[in-house]
Amino acid sequence: MKTNIEVAVIGGGIIGCSIAYYLSQAKVDVVLFEEQQIASKTTSAAAGMLGAHSELDEVQTFYSFALKSQLAYQSLQDEIKNISGIDIERKQGGIFQLVYSNQEKETLSSLLSLPTVEWYGAEDVSNHIPSVSPNIIGAAYIKDDVNVLPTSVCRGFAKSAQVLGASILDYTKVLDIKKENNGYTLYTTNGKFQAQYVVIANGVWSSTFLKKLGLNHTLIPVKGECLSVSSNSVPLKHTLFHKQSYIVPRNNGQLVIGATMVKDDWNIQPSIDGIESVISKAKSMLPEVSDMKIESFWAGLRPQTFDGKPFIGQHPEDSHLLFATGHYRNGILLAPATGQMIRNLILQQKVPEDWIEAFKINRKKHSLV
Amino acid sequence: MKTNIEVAVIGGGIIGCSIAYYLSQAKVDVVLFEEQQIASKTTSAAAGMLGAHSELDEVQTFYSFALKSQLAYQSLQDEIKNISGIDIERKQGGIFQLVYSNQEKETLSSLLSLPTVEWYGAEDVSNHIPSVSPNIIGAAYIKDDVNVLPTSVCRGFAKSAQVLGASILDYTKVLDIKKENNGYTLYTTNGKFQAQYVVIANGVWSSTFLKKLGLNHTLIPVKGECLSVSSNSVPLKHTLFHKQSYIVPRNNGQLVIGATMVKDDWNIQPSIDGIESVISKAKSMLPEVSDMKIESFWAGLRPQTFDGKPFIGQHPEDSHLLFATGHYRNGILLAPATGQMIRNLILQQKVPEDWIEAFKINRKKHSLV
Amino acid sequence: MKTNIEVAVIGGGIIGCSIAYYLSQAKVDVVLFEEQQIASKTTSAAAGMLGAHSELDEVQTFYSFALKSQLAYQSLQDEIKNISGIDIERKQGGIFQLVYSNQEKETLSSLLSLPTVEWYGAEDVSNHIPSVSPNIIGAAYIKDDVNVLPTSVCRGFAKSAQVLGASILDYTKVLDIKKENNGYTLYTTNGKFQAQYVVIANGVWSSTFLKKLGLNHTLIPVKGECLSVSSNSVPLKHTLFHKQSYIVPRNNGQLVIGATMVKDDWNIQPSIDGIESVISKAKSMLPEVSDMKIESFWAGLRPQTFDGKPFIGQHPEDSHLLFATGHYRNGILLAPATGQMIRNLILQQKVPEDWIEAFKINRKKHSLV
Amino acid sequence: MKTNIEVAVIGGGIIGCSIAYYLSQAKVDVVLFEEQQIASKTTSAAAGMLGAHSELDEVQTFYSFALKSQLAYQSLQDEIKNISGIDIERKQGGIFQLVYSNQEKETLSSLLSLPTVEWYGAEDVSNHIPSVSPNIIGAAYIKDDVNVLPTSVCRGFAKSAQVLGASILDYTKVLDIKKENNGYTLYTTNGKFQAQYVVIANGVWSSTFLKKLGLNHTLIPVKGECLSVSSNSVPLKHTLFHKQSYIVPRNNGQLVIGATMVKDDWNIQPSIDGIESVISKAKSMLPEVSDMKIESFWAGLRPQTFDGKPFIGQHPEDSHLLFATGHYRNGILLAPATGQMIRNLILQQKVPEDWIEAFKINRKKHSLV
Repeated sequence: MKTNIEVAVIGGGIIGCSIAYYLSQAKVDVVLFEEQQIASKTTSAAAGMLGAHSELDEVQTFYSFALKSQLAYQSLQDEIKNISGIDIERKQGGIFQLVYSNQEKETLSSLLSLPTVEWYGAEDVSNHIPSVSPNIIGAAYIKDDVNVLPTSVCRGFAKSAQVLGASILDYTKVLDIKKENNGYTLYTTNGKFQAQYVVIANGVWSSTFLKKLGLNHTLIPVKGECLSVSSNSVPLKHTLFHKQSYIVPRNNGQLVIGATMVKDDWNIQPSIDGIESVISKAKSMLPEVSDMKIESFWAGLRPQTFDGKPFIGQHPEDSHLLFATGHYRNGILLAPATGQMIRNLILQQKVPEDWIEAFKINRKKHSLV
Repeated sequence: MKTNIEVAVIGGGIIGCSIAYYLSQAKVDVVLFEEQQIASKTTSAAAGMLGAHSELDEVQTFYSFALKSQLAYQSLQDEIKNISGIDIERKQGGIFQLVYSNQEKETLSSLLSLPTVEWYGAEDVSNHIPSVSPNIIGAAYIKDDVNVLPTSVCRGFAKSAQVLGASILDYTKVLDIKKENNGYTLYTTNGKFQAQYVVIANGVWSSTFLKKLGLNHTLIPVKGECLSVSSNSVPLKHTLFHKQSYIVPRNNGQLVIGATMVKDDWNIQPSIDGIESVISKAKSMLPEVSDMKIESFWAGLRPQTFDGKPFIGQHPEDSHLLFATGHYRNGILLAPATGQMIRNLILQQKVPEDWIEAFKINRKKHSLV
Repeated sequence: MKTNIEVAVIGGGIIGCSIAYYLSQAKVDVVLFEEQQIASKTTSAAAGMLGAHSELDEVQTFYSFALKSQLAYQSLQDEIKNISGIDIERKQGGIFQLVYSNQEKETLSSLLSLPTVEWYGAEDVSNHIPSVSPNIIGAAYIKDDVNVLPTSVCRGFAKSAQVLGASILDYTKVLDIKKENNGYTLYTTNGKFQAQYVVIANGVWSSTFLKKLGLNHTLIPVKGECLSVSSNSVPLKHTLFHKQSYIVPRNNGQLVIGATMVKDDWNIQPSIDGIESVISKAKSMLPEVSDMKIESFWAGLRPQTFDGKPFIGQHPEDSHLLFATGHYRNGILLAPATGQMIRNLILQQKVPEDWIEAFKINRKKHSLV
Repeated sequence: MKTNIEVAVIGGGIIGCSIAYYLSQAKVDVVLFEEQQIASKTTSAAAGMLGAHSELDEVQTFYSFALKSQLAYQSLQDEIKNISGIDIERKQGGIFQLVYSNQEKETLSSLLSLPTVEWYGAEDVSNHIPSVSPNIIGAAYIKDDVNVLPTSVCRGFAKSAQVLGASILDYTKVLDIKKENNGYTLYTTNGKFQAQYVVIANGVWSSTFLKKLGLNHTLIPVKGECLSVSSNSVPLKHTLFHKQSYIVPRNNGQLVIGATMVKDDWNIQPSIDGIESVISKAKSMLPEVSDMKIESFWAGLRPQTFDGKPFIGQHPEDSHLLFATGHYRNGILLAPATGQMIRNLILQQKVPEDWIEAFKINRKKHSLV
């Protein structure tokens, strides 16, 4: 195995794999290190909504970044299939963000003012989704907020990167990183590697490396519990969304229902209370969920930074050390744009200044809120 | 394979396997036919409480039968381990039947008058189970209502029967039964068999054969949905029970929580509503369940007769055709006594007359209630 | 629920669901009865190769039927996605049918003479599949033999039929069928139904009904054992095939490897010997399989008729009773054409005479070989 | 939560949990830290043979330690059940160590000279195990080498420790350990803890801490791949063993078959080659395995030190820092004696000098071989 490399990426979730993909595409020599299996932790727990609009509380810098990423998925579908044979299962249908009161509608005014968002009255919504809750007064329909299958995107990135020349080392733990000579030495369970650049991209588990590398930023896990169900009724073709809960139809006809927000819980097994609250929220959106059959349940750990926005960029004092972590609820959505931005930073290509400012790790607390 | 046999048993759940075991022990030549896997359907879904007291609404004929069966489990533990190497996991600790009001306590007066049942005040109960609901006024403690692992009992019966000479044919469907000459011909997916006696013991799936054999009795499925959870708290050592819901501690430290009662539903996947109601009931008995982690969920189909009591005995007009089905909530508890009774009927040994009357298939409707 | 219907379809595998779909599309009133879950038995065990060419030993009547079915999948992909939201995961890439000797190549001469089949020398094959066995002398490449995900096709048919008006009753067992008045009465665990037409489409479990309906044809189970594996190597994009064993790449990057042929075995659990032989065969095609990681294993029961060809058509003496069963290794491939043929027979539309002759249930033994 | 503690144990496998148990029993204040779930990694992959005799190549110091541990299991069974309600499933029957040639028999001469080991000729063996390989010339029978269910032992230790006052923190990663004041500070994902003593007991993952604490000892993973099977034949009641492969009967009637020895592989998924070799070895011991049905498969990582013997004891220069790791193939067997030895070292109670010498971390390489 080659042990003298240009870029070492730590983390085999969707962020790390996206970075490996875009760097390999640019003919950069990459090795990715994943402690367990590719796409096995937070990525595998995500529903895969590309909610550039629906997930964002406000229209902001962040929004242009998210939109760019959402757009990138359009071409990625064919790219990844051609290179790796893997289908990322991009599924159209858009999102209905349900609204239960006029007061609630008002809080969505900036969302509703976007040209890509359409208001549907209650009757219109139930024409599309006959079994939607009778308690809604309407919904914001966002056609572009499609969804993908996160494990397939992640494995597709990894496999494509491999075809393009990257090494993807699963079950390989990075034990230590040391700055040495003109780069970094990585001590791993698979031996020692020399890299010119290191990218920390292992989600909520990044804290260890941040601390080791002299940065006192903690990533906090926000556990999300989910269910999947199957039903005998007429299929749901659109995602339903309300206050960060959702019902997402999959390509195989199942519905994915999620998710709770349990701060500071590292346990990845769903709790009784968590499952109960997911069920109750789903019933308030789509009452017929009551009769559906449970297929499986799981949980994942979203990595949250102090202000809820990711850290994407270079170490303040060392341009060869990069971060791409803390994507919280938006890892799937932001993966392509994150991969491209990291690639551009390493290749010294243009990156919009406001993105650099917005996502730099040494930004002031609350600067974005 | 021997195709000319003394007794053909249809059904590889705990009832059929118990019958095969007791007959083999008496040196009778038995073949058992199971459509799928041994212990894979209703038996595998049961919690395994041997609730001779707690499951019974009233003290009656039934009670002596249940007590005898409960007692038989004491010696079965060693018997089955010696013959087959399988441990039935008989777990002591007894049942606390929780009581939430004086009115409720009154309905239990005949239970509480039994010498084997003891009344505990709320404080006493919480000395034993610190995390029990604060809303109880006390509990009936029934020391003898221990529990077993149903799949292990069933496989233990089957394997032991095999060691004693029986043939256990799994994945073998009985397609047709015809009365011929001095016995029955069974047409199966594994060929044709001649048997002197046939015992129908396949639970809620017995209806087909009953109809075929000229008996118009229907067994109705009553679906029960269950969960298992693991916890980090102090272990529960006793079963909790209230109005047919229960929390049963297993030998491996997990808790089994159940069960709903959904009449006439053949679907063996738990529904969202079912799981929600199981959770809510468990929380009302043991509030700390809220924090426990879900391990798995499942459902099973209890076979219910018109009056809720099993059919055990001979066909009214043909002593070579027997039934052992419809055990509803009590299949695990009643399996040993049922196996012994069927063995005695076939060997023309003594069976208490009131048992014969109570369980005969042509009893009058409502005769027992 | 409507109990007076035009067509009752028995069997919720891919054949039954295809029939329900095509009939519903023609505005026929259909109820489908499935004993367990839709797509849960033989269909769920299939690899999903649409091997119109590669699976067929000889060019024959059968071939035109298979080709038509293969072609139908092209339009089905969009049709089913539009109606039901389910993606059947049609995956291109074609099949390389490996050849290890000149003698073997000769046996494929009629296949190789087809305009749609191309011969590749060993070097050409290994240009496409670098890790192919070095022992081959070449391969027949069949571009049109793509693959689909069988459970998704089956659920897509079922869900689409439902949207178009059909009732899909899972966990509903048909206990008995009786000819009465101008049609049939079906006694099921979900009540009694009157149907003008009945279609028997439940694979190897059809025998029971055939016998009941006076036809002495037995369907024999031919068990097939399979594995799925994941790998870290360069992705396989084409299916490999040799003497009825195959390695099929899935959309998620996994490989499906199968399958044994164990006659007359109803047990659906893979045996140690079965798994060993699947592994050994796979290694002879793609040696790097050795290092791949096992994801799961399973088995299914192919329904085989006396001559290996399906029974598709009407009862010789009763045009209201139809059969669509015995598809053996070709159920996924032939599902669309079978559904269309049954629809046409019921609607008295044109069906090619040689298809009727080839698939009629009362054909002479060996007539096709 | 109490953060000022006497002993911090790192690792929630059987070694760490045993230590927590014996310390809690001695009223020492313990907190155990486990990164994932209790008993979820190497412990859960073990077969649980207590092979004090059969696993040891030679009779040595090690042997007295192993024997003591094996003996401890006798009383542990009741102890753990009483405290925690968990049954460790200690299963008698002993081991038949198969011998295929006279040459092989000679290598076992010291084993065979033990008073607790008995030689059986081929015929005697097949009287006990009719289906044993006809190629054996006999077997060493070791009655005392019983087996237990490793996950239940481990959870039983953990739960009992908890009842006795310990804190068992699962899903809690120790990020850093620093020597400070009169003890150690542990930085964890669950906050900061001060401990007077620290015990490193996390198997193959201990290397990180060893390095951090200035010890340059590496633990190497030796991956073991296993299968479980079920059978319809007469039950196996004894463990079969040959050259570190085994077939172990479980309490539920299944057989556990293992295991490969793949050095330096951190991947915990079984490979195709691994499963193939396990199958082949099992068939050479018990040919009827061929027909058995596969239930599941898995792999685990044994922690191997430079000489194959564990590190149990104090840091050469710091008696408050202890190690209990590197148990390789013998973690289950040695857990009780290891827990007792660590307890005694901390409480300054007597520990045999030759054990201290044999297991100290700074022993000379090859000193034991």
